[in-house]
Amino acid sequence: MNPPLALAMGSSSDWETLQHAAVLLDDFGVAYEKCVVSAHRMPDDMFAFAEGAAARGLKAIIAGAGGAAHLPGMLAAKTVVPVLGVPVASKHLQGVDSLYSIVQMPKGIPVATFAIGPAGAANAALFAIAMLANEDAALRQKLQDFRARQTEAARAMTQELR
Amino acid sequence: MNPPLALAMGSSSDWETLQHAAVLLDDFGVAYEKCVVSAHRMPDDMFAFAEGAAARGLKAIIAGAGGAAHLPGMLAAKTVVPVLGVPVASKHLQGVDSLYSIVQMPKGIPVATFAIGPAGAANAALFAIAMLANEDAALRQKLQDFRARQTEAARAMTQELR
Amino acid sequence: MNPPLALAMGSSSDWETLQHAAVLLDDFGVAYEKCVVSAHRMPDDMFAFAEGAAARGLKAIIAGAGGAAHLPGMLAAKTVVPVLGVPVASKHLQGVDSLYSIVQMPKGIPVATFAIGPAGAANAALFAIAMLANEDAALRQKLQDFRARQTEAARAMTQELR
Amino acid sequence: MNPPLALAMGSSSDWETLQHAAVLLDDFGVAYEKCVVSAHRMPDDMFAFAEGAAARGLKAIIAGAGGAAHLPGMLAAKTVVPVLGVPVASKHLQGVDSLYSIVQMPKGIPVATFAIGPAGAANAALFAIAMLANEDAALRQKLQDFRARQTEAARAMTQELR
Amino acid sequence: MNPPLALAMGSSSDWETLQHAAVLLDDFGVAYEKCVVSAHRMPDDMFAFAEGAAARGLKAIIAGAGGAAHLPGMLAAKTVVPVLGVPVASKHLQGVDSLYSIVQMPKGIPVATFAIGPAGAANAALFAIAMLANEDAALRQKLQDFRARQTEAARAMTQELR
Amino acid sequence: MNPPLALAMGSSSDWETLQHAAVLLDDFGVAYEKCVVSAHRMPDDMFAFAEGAAARGLKAIIAGAGGAAHLPGMLAAKTVVPVLGVPVASKHLQGVDSLYSIVQMPKGIPVATFAIGPAGAANAALFAIAMLANEDAALRQKLQDFRARQTEAARAMTQELR
Amino acid sequence: MNPPLALAMGSSSDWETLQHAAVLLDDFGVAYEKCVVSAHRMPDDMFAFAEGAAARGLKAIIAGAGGAAHLPGMLAAKTVVPVLGVPVASKHLQGVDSLYSIVQMPKGIPVATFAIGPAGAANAALFAIAMLANEDAALRQKLQDFRARQTEAARAMTQELR
Amino acid sequence: MNPPLALAMGSSSDWETLQHAAVLLDDFGVAYEKCVVSAHRMPDDMFAFAEGAAARGLKAIIAGAGGAAHLPGMLAAKTVVPVLGVPVASKHLQGVDSLYSIVQMPKGIPVATFAIGPAGAANAALFAIAMLANEDAALRQKLQDFRARQTEAARAMTQELR
Repeated sequence: MNPPLALAMGSSSDWETLQHAAVLLDDFGVAYEKCVVSAHRMPDDMFAFAEGAAARGLKAIIAGAGGAAHLPGMLAAKTVVPVLGVPVASKHLQGVDSLYSIVQMPKGIPVATFAIGPAGAANAALFAIAMLANEDAALRQKLQDFRARQTEAARAMTQELR
Repeated sequence: MNPPLALAMGSSSDWETLQHAAVLLDDFGVAYEKCVVSAHRMPDDMFAFAEGAAARGLKAIIAGAGGAAHLPGMLAAKTVVPVLGVPVASKHLQGVDSLYSIVQMPKGIPVATFAIGPAGAANAALFAIAMLANEDAALRQKLQDFRARQTEAARAMTQELR
Repeated sequence: MNPPLALAMGSSSDWETLQHAAVLLDDFGVAYEKCVVSAHRMPDDMFAFAEGAAARGLKAIIAGAGGAAHLPGMLAAKTVVPVLGVPVASKHLQGVDSLYSIVQMPKGIPVATFAIGPAGAANAALFAIAMLANEDAALRQKLQDFRARQTEAARAMTQELR
Repeated sequence: MNPPLALAMGSSSDWETLQHAAVLLDDFGVAYEKCVVSAHRMPDDMFAFAEGAAARGLKAIIAGAGGAAHLPGMLAAKTVVPVLGVPVASKHLQGVDSLYSIVQMPKGIPVATFAIGPAGAANAALFAIAMLANEDAALRQKLQDFRARQTEAARAMTQELR
Repeated sequence: MNPPLALAMGSSSDWETLQHAAVLLDDFGVAYEKCVVSAHRMPDDMFAFAEGAAARGLKAIIAGAGGAAHLPGMLAAKTVVPVLGVPVASKHLQGVDSLYSIVQMPKGIPVATFAIGPAGAANAALFAIAMLANEDAALRQKLQDFRARQTEAARAMTQELR
Repeated sequence: MNPPLALAMGSSSDWETLQHAAVLLDDFGVAYEKCVVSAHRMPDDMFAFAEGAAARGLKAIIAGAGGAAHLPGMLAAKTVVPVLGVPVASKHLQGVDSLYSIVQMPKGIPVATFAIGPAGAANAALFAIAMLANEDAALRQKLQDFRARQTEAARAMTQELR
Repeated sequence: MNPPLALAMGSSSDWETLQHAAVLLDDFGVAYEKCVVSAHRMPDDMFAFAEGAAARGLKAIIAGAGGAAHLPGMLAAKTVVPVLGVPVASKHLQGVDSLYSIVQMPKGIPVATFAIGPAGAANAALFAIAMLANEDAALRQKLQDFRARQTEAARAMTQELR
Repeated sequence: MNPPLALAMGSSSDWETLQHAAVLLDDFGVAYEKCVVSAHRMPDDMFAFAEGAAARGLKAIIAGAGGAAHLPGMLAAKTVVPVLGVPVASKHLQGVDSLYSIVQMPKGIPVATFAIGPAGAANAALFAIAMLANEDAALRQKLQDFRARQTEAARAMTQELR
């Protein structure tokens, strides 16, 4: 069976950010493809990747890019499969450029955007899991268990303070 | 049957923005609840709203708020149902405050964020439709038809220029 | 007797910032509780914490958080006890996101906001002391003494320049 | 008896913003002085105002100013009475300059800062009321009633949407 | 003969900005195509447009777009013909989002970017003319004459002041 | 024969950024002059440099500067030879000041602006090459080969991820 | 006798801002030249203007410009006469671009910068008067009288509030 | 004889920035006082400092401060002696807060503002020297020599590039 999710990034250097999504997907046992499909350096591959997304059963694409970050929006332009955008922090503008380039999509082509950097990558994964969990009771249970453990871990922090 | 989507907003004044989501959902024939659940003025109702979200079959919640916009993030903290956040433009900071308050969620609780203002509301609706369309071939066809009409409308613009 | 103040934070990592408040409270001999009550990972505990605030005699809550910092505003939504918000510096946006998420509260639910980072934490403590000093002549005297020593220390700096 | 609160502003043009505090104080029946004490054009009056604040029984000063807004910080430098700062929106920078000039106080002299513009003025008043309510059960009851009415008004908004 | 320049825009609403380029090209007698090729709503047409650019003799493409403005960068990804990007002012962020989305291209695919709004459109046209003038002495003379007239017009302004 | 391109910078410290242009020009075998012509410290040399640009056959000038970066715009004011501006990252404002000082030119005098820092320098070189390639089939072929190799390098990154 | 001050601006449209300087200089009876010397459209006139500044007895030049505002810095590069820069508000970026282009001068060539818009123009005039007043007891007395009247006017505002 | 200039700073930690002014004043042989006069921690000393400025013959005060930087503006409110403001870089906001707090003075009380950090401190010194040089031919000559050496040093940089 094809994996339901894809991790796409504009450069292998974005992996440092996107791996925070991969770790969570692995933890939840959700399969995913991963690849570099640079919007600017591989535009035709990028279009081909998006065109085939629905047919090979993808339920969502997590796409990360930095600077003038066009990858998430261009994938979304080419497929109706939901696209989740992760703004990778840029060297000079700290990812504000990445964020604006991803989130400010015009009416008609949506990209669901998450926080700048690793937190955003992790949350894109959790969001994708929550989407899949709408149709998968076992996965939803896992997500609820994750939330419960997360709550416990936060509670335990009060002990650390002492 | 319960509607699969909810439109939640922090104040009735946010309707001016959120109605751009409602119009699209109506066009696609997707049912939704709508309500004001102010995070700050109705915190208990807001928690109750989120707590019941999964049980009453919601597949996604579109939540719009402005300024220190806590509604989307707090709903997401209380339910595993996917939350889509719409930053409503604020009077003095043009929605940059709303955007940062919604998109910069810490690792663990995701909110899928869209553009500031009406474009973001419309795209949150289109994204929710795309999520539902993953499991509904007829809806996916409608979405593809919408995209095709949108392409035609854009193409027709070149004529307008002459 | 219950302490009149509480230090609440969204994560134990915020302690690095909030301890600058604790040091001052210790210096002034003002008692305080301290705990992690993450708005996003422990929403119910956070509400319970706020609901009990007035009853257990708290005169003010100092709450620090970073990024989409919802803790101060949500505590304020759940109690009439004054809430003092400290924006913790975030990794990518240097705390501008934290500041906007805390200070831009809508009309009806106030959060008193202080500077980004340790200076803000220290000043939140001094402000809480000033509040208590309105009803406590000995504490006011201590505060005036602190101010006088601070003035002397600044004056001494001119010597250092030589 | 002297009023427990003062409304101070840098110019009579700031009244458009500060009156949103006055309206709430009137509603709660809390007395206040009000005056223009420009930090830049009336520096000596401003210092005299602050120096007398504690002696004439002020429990808090709400100070609003715009642009390079020095009034709240300079009052705070001259009195231990708590100062609440309201950033008035500026013509060109929309109050970001006012906000930074008020909130970014260095360690040692706190100013409690609220949102840019009328919402911030109203919330400064509500915060001052909450401070006084710590020692005044009747006022606290009024504040709780205000909150309850505010909740009802927000709840009623869902009806408006229909 | 094919025109040496093209004006491309993401929506017919961008014409309000881009016409400031057209007026100048008309004044200089430089021919151009003009069309709407939305990156997001007409991605395949946009790619086809770019793929044919070199073959039909284009020497430069002036591309304007607003918000998450991907058109200039994606055209540049698909052709070696020089692309000049014009950030169209956006409703909420005044074109800062458009500017960052266009100018912050990663190494490898350049977009020459001009000012936000009409001034940028006019200057993109003047830059394209200057490029063509490198190989066309008559056009260069026209450009020098334009500069000279512009200098005279600016000089005349001192008279207006009196 | 005179080189067709010039690299100009406001200070030798800008070479760290501009050398990313030089490396690419060397790779493509395109000749260039390089010099420091500070707009502020060498204004007359700077004017003389620009005045002679057309006569000595320059087809484009790549100019980099930081902070209040006036060099690209002032060169453009003095010559009709196309000027490509590179915003050098500044110490405190990360190059936002450089970017605004270069890109926001008023109508009448264009500067083609590229990304902040090394990516912008490299892209200014690639853009200049693309301009020259309009009239030089061999250079255009080299540029297409560069693009093809760049695509291959990006494709190879997917392997690295495994 | 030559006037001791000059008002220079990049365009006659800047007069709307700079006249706020002129009104004050007229009130104080301080003579001044005024002219448009666009840095970008009249670079040679601008250099000539600056080169002659010291010889014709100017004690200061007030220079206003907007957007990529190079006029103040370039005048300062060409004369040792003190230059006072006024950032004129720009259409899209509200004068932040003008401010950064003027204030962020590199070490070696200073420009004294004032607030964005009319307040900055008025204050540049007051600063120039204060400079002249260092050597002119009568003018200093006028300045002190102006300050005293300004204080009275501010004091009177408290009456207006009643 | 009293020195004609003063260097004032809000904290001894600002000396790291302000010493760049001192070095230049030393080089030019211009005498100056230097002191810490914190606006917030030493408000009365600060007022006394400003009140005596004219009487002890100061021709200008260079004042540096960071964050909510009120020192330059408050000195200017208390004396007609010209005040030159230097925004010291702040930890979290890189001096944007300092810049806005200093430059955005309201009409009536001017502060001449320079760049953020050491470059601004050096330029404030050069500007003060240029002011004094208006009345001191020998100092003006020194300033012109400084400029000439600076030009030579910049010219020499072109050699370094080779």
